[in-house]
Amino acid sequence: MLNDDWKPSETSAIPLYKQIAQFIKEKISSGEWTIGTKLPTQREFAEILEVNRSTVITALEDLKAEGLIEGKNSGGTVVVNNTWSLLNNSRTPKWEGYIERGIYKPNLSTIQMINKLEFKNGIIRLGTGEVSPSLYPKQAMKKILHKVSNNLESMGYEQPKGSIKLRGAISEYVKKFGIKTSPEAVLIVSGSLQALQLLSMGILPKASTIITEKPSYLKSLHIFQSEGMKLKGIGMDEHGINVNELRNSINKSTKLLYTIPTFHNPTGILQTEERRDEVLNLCREKRLPIIEDDAYRELWLEEKPPMPLKSKDKDGMVLYIGTVSKCLAAGMRIGWIVGPEAVIDRLADIKMQADYGSSSISQAVLSEFIESGLYEKYIEKLRNNLVVRRNITIEILEKYFKHIAQWNVPKGGFYIWLKLKKHISIDLLFKMCCEEGILINPGSIYDFVKNSNIRISYSYADIKELESALKRLSEIVIEITART
Amino acid sequence: MLNDDWKPSETSAIPLYKQIAQFIKEKISSGEWTIGTKLPTQREFAEILEVNRSTVITALEDLKAEGLIEGKNSGGTVVVNNTWSLLNNSRTPKWEGYIERGIYKPNLSTIQMINKLEFKNGIIRLGTGEVSPSLYPKQAMKKILHKVSNNLESMGYEQPKGSIKLRGAISEYVKKFGIKTSPEAVLIVSGSLQALQLLSMGILPKASTIITEKPSYLKSLHIFQSEGMKLKGIGMDEHGINVNELRNSINKSTKLLYTIPTFHNPTGILQTEERRDEVLNLCREKRLPIIEDDAYRELWLEEKPPMPLKSKDKDGMVLYIGTVSKCLAAGMRIGWIVGPEAVIDRLADIKMQADYGSSSISQAVLSEFIESGLYEKYIEKLRNNLVVRRNITIEILEKYFKHIAQWNVPKGGFYIWLKLKKHISIDLLFKMCCEEGILINPGSIYDFVKNSNIRISYSYADIKELESALKRLSEIVIEITART
Ligand SMILES: Cc1ncc(COP(=O)(O)O)c(C=O)c1O
Ligand SMILES: Cc1ncc(COP(=O)(O)O)c(C=O)c1O
Repeated sequence: MLNDDWKPSETSAIPLYKQIAQFIKEKISSGEWTIGTKLPTQREFAEILEVNRSTVITALEDLKAEGLIEGKNSGGTVVVNNTWSLLNNSRTPKWEGYIERGIYKPNLSTIQMINKLEFKNGIIRLGTGEVSPSLYPKQAMKKILHKVSNNLESMGYEQPKGSIKLRGAISEYVKKFGIKTSPEAVLIVSGSLQALQLLSMGILPKASTIITEKPSYLKSLHIFQSEGMKLKGIGMDEHGINVNELRNSINKSTKLLYTIPTFHNPTGILQTEERRDEVLNLCREKRLPIIEDDAYRELWLEEKPPMPLKSKDKDGMVLYIGTVSKCLAAGMRIGWIVGPEAVIDRLADIKMQADYGSSSISQAVLSEFIESGLYEKYIEKLRNNLVVRRNITIEILEKYFKHIAQWNVPKGGFYIWLKLKKHISIDLLFKMCCEEGILINPGSIYDFVKNSNIRISYSYADIKELESALKRLSEIVIEITART
Repeated sequence: MLNDDWKPSETSAIPLYKQIAQFIKEKISSGEWTIGTKLPTQREFAEILEVNRSTVITALEDLKAEGLIEGKNSGGTVVVNNTWSLLNNSRTPKWEGYIERGIYKPNLSTIQMINKLEFKNGIIRLGTGEVSPSLYPKQAMKKILHKVSNNLESMGYEQPKGSIKLRGAISEYVKKFGIKTSPEAVLIVSGSLQALQLLSMGILPKASTIITEKPSYLKSLHIFQSEGMKLKGIGMDEHGINVNELRNSINKSTKLLYTIPTFHNPTGILQTEERRDEVLNLCREKRLPIIEDDAYRELWLEEKPPMPLKSKDKDGMVLYIGTVSKCLAAGMRIGWIVGPEAVIDRLADIKMQADYGSSSISQAVLSEFIESGLYEKYIEKLRNNLVVRRNITIEILEKYFKHIAQWNVPKGGFYIWLKLKKHISIDLLFKMCCEEGILINPGSIYDFVKNSNIRISYSYADIKELESALKRLSEIVIEITART
């Protein structure tokens, strides 16, 4: 509600508290803070506006006297009138009711918090699933943007499935992974998250069950649940999803398997070739379609991973999802789905109802990037960087976490799935870390049960910060353990 | 299913029919055309592959003999086996069932058709709601892209509400229209269509009714209906929506008014200042929130339109939607919502579940475009161009449609709402036009009842083509009228 944009002026003739009262009044009278809106706490006001708490209190008292705000017994201060409602009758719509009764579930509160804190100045992001800005290929991107700027002749709505140039580039690109497809069977989406969104809107009845690994990235989302579907989690071992458990779980309501066979999020597990065959055979037998989310494939460290399930799919039973978010730029918002043409057509039609296609500039830039060969070169460099980062991180863990946690050594991707040996409150850990400017991703947001894991990413934070923050994390863990 | 990418080679030693059979076989064996897929007709094959129909027939006979495809009694040929299913048992998932049972409604078939035909080579688009590529500001865009390429330091996920730079630029920009907002109360979306999508997912219970003008752009979409809501249409006169009818229609299930007061799509009507006040007062009295879709505001021709409803909204009851699709570039996929902060926060959270934010490049380009002042300059020029186009189009209508139709002379936007005097089948008209390479938007897709209107856009087609196509359109209308 408050950001760094505005602070009261120390040099103004108007007293600080009056400036603050005026600022709040404008928020109220412009309709940004409607009647019923809860104000920030006094402490938040004081911190962000950089004034004493007593100044805030005086400002709020003034507004209370004017009848604009009121302290509630439940704690907190809310807007009860606006400048106009004092003159005539208040007629604000009851927005709270609207917000609460909307169809889609809100994000998990921890995720809302993470989404917000990630942009807080100075915070160290230990969990972020993204490549560090310091590894961004600025020069290459500049070159490509120049080229695109010379070639762009117009920028209208694109074809439903996405620009034909990019679809062509993608169908060439996935050949590397043994996937044969024409551009007609490729749909460009605004990131692979949107692929999941379109699938939930387009190909499943309400009462469906979607099976996935336990834990899974998918569990941190509400995409399918918001449309009335259920998720079911299946355990994993170090070779991937447990096939027997999978077999026993499939029943009439099971409509899809969502899986991340390659450098799984959050566990980092790489499914073996053998396990892949088992999964494919089982799904084939059960006629169970598969969504293969291959976001991390390019990020192998020493050795190429086995080919995707899709490469062995002779029946059009795998919907294959890719993205450039993890290896090039999440802000591009470009991903793709490869699958049977009838399914792609259906999803494209729904995409035309969701956003009329993805950004033309992003699409033009990405096709150039891939076709120029710069993409391939850049990823090679990135891999070298990630090996270094993983090794350093493992060393840091050896140093500080040996006695308090266990972990895997990932062969690719971004994640170390840190399992604390003693059960402590991860909520408390999350909170205490936040207070010290360290942001972690609690494992529970990905899991079907409470767990004592933390997803550590070695891809994002500066290497120096990684060490200091992990050290501090270990200390806080020990502190909490001692308390409990 | 077929595109221009592949044609059999005339110079190859392999006979044409064999090449075609091989081509189809690959589609089937790669899983793009799964079992159950309906093939294109013989005529379509012949046309697109540029061969005789007899060649196509021979190719299909070959595949039938192999057991891969089958002619159906209902007409049409479908895939019945794939290369592997002939060896072992076929295990293709039943995709048809999946596609049919998905939650979201498909687009209207006319709209699916339009979405497809718009990209057919040589077609003249008489209905397209977009600025002609010939008016695209190539030089200005080039300049901006260069600037952006020099400044982009990274490209990660953006803040939930969108880049702070662009939100700042937008909150400055809307001041021009009397709207006061801070960047905290602005949400960047991937086009204004996505704004509607987020609203349908985020702030309404299933059984809600949304009121809108009759006809309305909104009626051509299924966004709200797919989530279980209803649309109700209210008539218009030349001053805008009918307020008495609106008053009588509001009941307990009415949750929103969606309105396009400025250069309405599809009628082109500009709501008067007085009517705006009446609508606002009524909605205030009824506590009925308003979505004001202001996509066409900048496209006034002689005279600025009245200020938006939002500019007079003292209670935070208006959610204001803007976009650059209509005046700058639809391929940018950038729009915005301005509203009470609590609503914006909720929508931002849902956007994080839909696509994790809009393209960073698009956002960077647009903020530069606006802040540099180039946007303002470009729109001035565009307006001059559109005046010329409107005038010419009206002249053409005078020439060819005087006896067969009525129309408005729009004061802005893109659209002329052509009403045919005699009732004829617009479906037939649509079809006959398509066959002659003319694409029209039948009025019925926007309406709650069958009508005999056509939405003509003077913004898209080349001016020469506008004349030839409109002339031909008039002839076809006369032809059909004579027949009926
Ligand atoms: C497995 C997986 N799939 C999809 C996504 C979404 O990525 P995007 O929408 O940026 O492509 C993520 C991001 O964390 C992921 O880990
Ligand atoms: C009134 C109105 N609103 C919204 C849109 C959607 O535009 P976009 O999503 O490109 O911003 C259109 C496009 O035709 C329109 O006419």
